[in-house]
Amino acid sequence: MATDTAGRTAGTTDSRQRFIDVAVRLFTQHSFAGTSLQMIADEVGVTKAAVYHHFRTREDLLAAVIEPLLAQLRTIVEEAEAQRSTSARAEHLLTGFTRLAVRNRELMSVLAADPGTIDLLRSQHDVGSLIDRQVKLLADVTPGTAGMVNAAVVMAGIAGAAGPKLIDLDEEELTEHLIQAGRRTLGLRAPRRSSSEGR
Amino acid sequence: MATDTAGRTAGTTDSRQRFIDVAVRLFTQHSFAGTSLQMIADEVGVTKAAVYHHFRTREDLLAAVIEPLLAQLRTIVEEAEAQRSTSARAEHLLTGFTRLAVRNRELMSVLAADPGTIDLLRSQHDVGSLIDRQVKLLADVTPGTAGMVNAAVVMAGIAGAAGPKLIDLDEEELTEHLIQAGRRTLGLRAPRRSSSEGR
Repeated sequence: MATDTAGRTAGTTDSRQRFIDVAVRLFTQHSFAGTSLQMIADEVGVTKAAVYHHFRTREDLLAAVIEPLLAQLRTIVEEAEAQRSTSARAEHLLTGFTRLAVRNRELMSVLAADPGTIDLLRSQHDVGSLIDRQVKLLADVTPGTAGMVNAAVVMAGIAGAAGPKLIDLDEEELTEHLIQAGRRTLGLRAPRRSSSEGR
Repeated sequence: MATDTAGRTAGTTDSRQRFIDVAVRLFTQHSFAGTSLQMIADEVGVTKAAVYHHFRTREDLLAAVIEPLLAQLRTIVEEAEAQRSTSARAEHLLTGFTRLAVRNRELMSVLAADPGTIDLLRSQHDVGSLIDRQVKLLADVTPGTAGMVNAAVVMAGIAGAAGPKLIDLDEEELTEHLIQAGRRTLGLRAPRRSSSEGR
């Protein structure tokens, strides 16, 4: 599913997309720090120069890999912030983040996992503030430090549990269980409206 | 706190312990895959040969780093399995795992995070079966696939949230909040006996 991670399908970007797909796979297997551009070139079956044509550094490649994911996350955070109540804001972020994580299981495990990628993203993008806004939306459900801890457990727990190595379930079932686990962790009740799926 | 990660304090093992301490720090910063023995030698201020004297590969060093942690985790799992009820087993594992994670925050983030370390540990030690036993103790609280997902969220969530980068709280407060979050995720009630600390 090339469109899952980059949303590009045009013919001219096919080779670019191939590098991105292989990068996601190698990052998942070896972590970001453990993957070189040479390894990516070898895996695709081209020279390193061919990779350089599209990406000058491994960091450029990581940025291209996560760009579409970040754009989706930003939309989810903005939509959540526009909700009226604390619990509606947390619920919107929880469901949106979980669906995003499950749709991008391989990539989530790289991002949630590798300390190198998070540091890099924090320094290069507005990812730091996006994560802070995400944490706040979840933390506000419970006052004080307990709310912060709950938010951290939910984010790390969902990102980690969605990783491909932990659980072998179809996407829909995994999503539903993760959302319910997240609600319990946060102390959120399932919303009545627009939720025919639960319980 | 050298004794936190290896429990060795005797003079003869001081230099060995120094490599282990530096390794934990560099693994945390750069991930396991992103840390070479040369980097560890440079950081300690010795030649690579001096590192080789104690550890022939980076994998040996990782094994030395996690050995004391694994021994403690094994004890916790065995004690938990000896409890009488499903909820007592889950409660024992949850509290033991959380305390272990918080006491070893730096190291937990390396292990919980880096896909390279988990694969390596699974292949070299009985870590795979230890993790499986841990998951089962938590998963048994809730029937079916929901129980598995809850267990994965709790383990990934606690290990991730205990990581040094997410939350700046003292160990005791963090431990208490994490245990309460874990109980809610699993649907466990706080035990009445031997728990004067909570609520």
